[in-house]
Amino acid sequence: MKLIDALNWRYATKKMNGQKVPQEKLDYILEAIRLSPSSSGLQPYEIIVITNQDLLEKIKAIGWNQSQITDCSHLLVFAAWDGYSLEKITKVFDRTLAERGLPANTMDDYKKTLWGLYEPLPAEWHANHAARQAYIALGVALVAAAEQQVDATPMEGFIPEELDKILGLKEKGLKSAVILPLGYRDEANDWLVNMKKVRTPKEKFVSEIK
Amino acid sequence: MKLIDALNWRYATKKMNGQKVPQEKLDYILEAIRLSPSSSGLQPYEIIVITNQDLLEKIKAIGWNQSQITDCSHLLVFAAWDGYSLEKITKVFDRTLAERGLPANTMDDYKKTLWGLYEPLPAEWHANHAARQAYIALGVALVAAAEQQVDATPMEGFIPEELDKILGLKEKGLKSAVILPLGYRDEANDWLVNMKKVRTPKEKFVSEIK
Repeated sequence: MKLIDALNWRYATKKMNGQKVPQEKLDYILEAIRLSPSSSGLQPYEIIVITNQDLLEKIKAIGWNQSQITDCSHLLVFAAWDGYSLEKITKVFDRTLAERGLPANTMDDYKKTLWGLYEPLPAEWHANHAARQAYIALGVALVAAAEQQVDATPMEGFIPEELDKILGLKEKGLKSAVILPLGYRDEANDWLVNMKKVRTPKEKFVSEIK
Repeated sequence: MKLIDALNWRYATKKMNGQKVPQEKLDYILEAIRLSPSSSGLQPYEIIVITNQDLLEKIKAIGWNQSQITDCSHLLVFAAWDGYSLEKITKVFDRTLAERGLPANTMDDYKKTLWGLYEPLPAEWHANHAARQAYIALGVALVAAAEQQVDATPMEGFIPEELDKILGLKEKGLKSAVILPLGYRDEANDWLVNMKKVRTPKEKFVSEIK
């Protein structure tokens, strides 16, 4: 399926039918997320896959009671690092160099420059920057799901601090950024399924400087 | 090309060869961006496509002198709204309802709730939230480019305030969020082209709660 066709097929599914997404399709979507690019390759987020119904009910309660949270097959939580640290950056760079068979000091100058930029910035900047990287992967995940004919609804409508508490994220140095229920549309009961996809017209969205 | 293959083919191209991306491929990538989802469908960003070499030189000077900025075929600037307003939201919702043939007041309650949430939040939250939506489209754009065998390098390494000045974005209520040169890899001169793609191992990246 071509990407444009996948984008036209997908929509923010409002009602899911509870059908399970096969493991191989889930694994495919997770692998697409894992392969997504991020600033300096740091991948400053983790993915939590939730299928526990009791937990999903609790999340729904702090998620504007949106039905997809419990009617989905799997709920993905994109949990971003609450901040960068020299230690975290070093760990990633060391692994990268080891896997590439390069000397351990190859990225020392780059690391110094990067941490020189990041260190003085406030905690909020750090958390926001990490969350943005997760949003790149969210975009990739949405295409991956659509290519696999799996429905997905990107959701910001939840109380992040409450979700962090439910999942114990603070203790892990993480903050929930966005959630993504995966599943299948309930065509008979989804008011959005047959609505026209509306987007800003190209002439108001794209400009050129030649 | 399957999405996973596209993700494995792509990499953050460090050296481009100046070859031009055909118009139809550029249009395809821009259409993928336009079709990308965003919170409440607001698409709070615009895309500026730059091919003017003098301008690209100026941008390179405030972009850590990275060569892709001038060796690319087209430079895409993702410029996010500097904030939401009731007027902007109303405009988008009115267009959506008109295109769907629904009564003009259909989304009034939703709009009220949404603006009730957004209005009290600080300007920085607004700008960050809009930029995050642009990052979803950035993820989609990277896959679209790879599917078309076009190289693309997502870049945050520039001074946003300076780019905003160069492009006169402030006057338009926009802030540069991220830039994306599109072009073709210079295989002979790109140190990264043959390096192994390194990612966090799945077991450290994904956890499950069953």
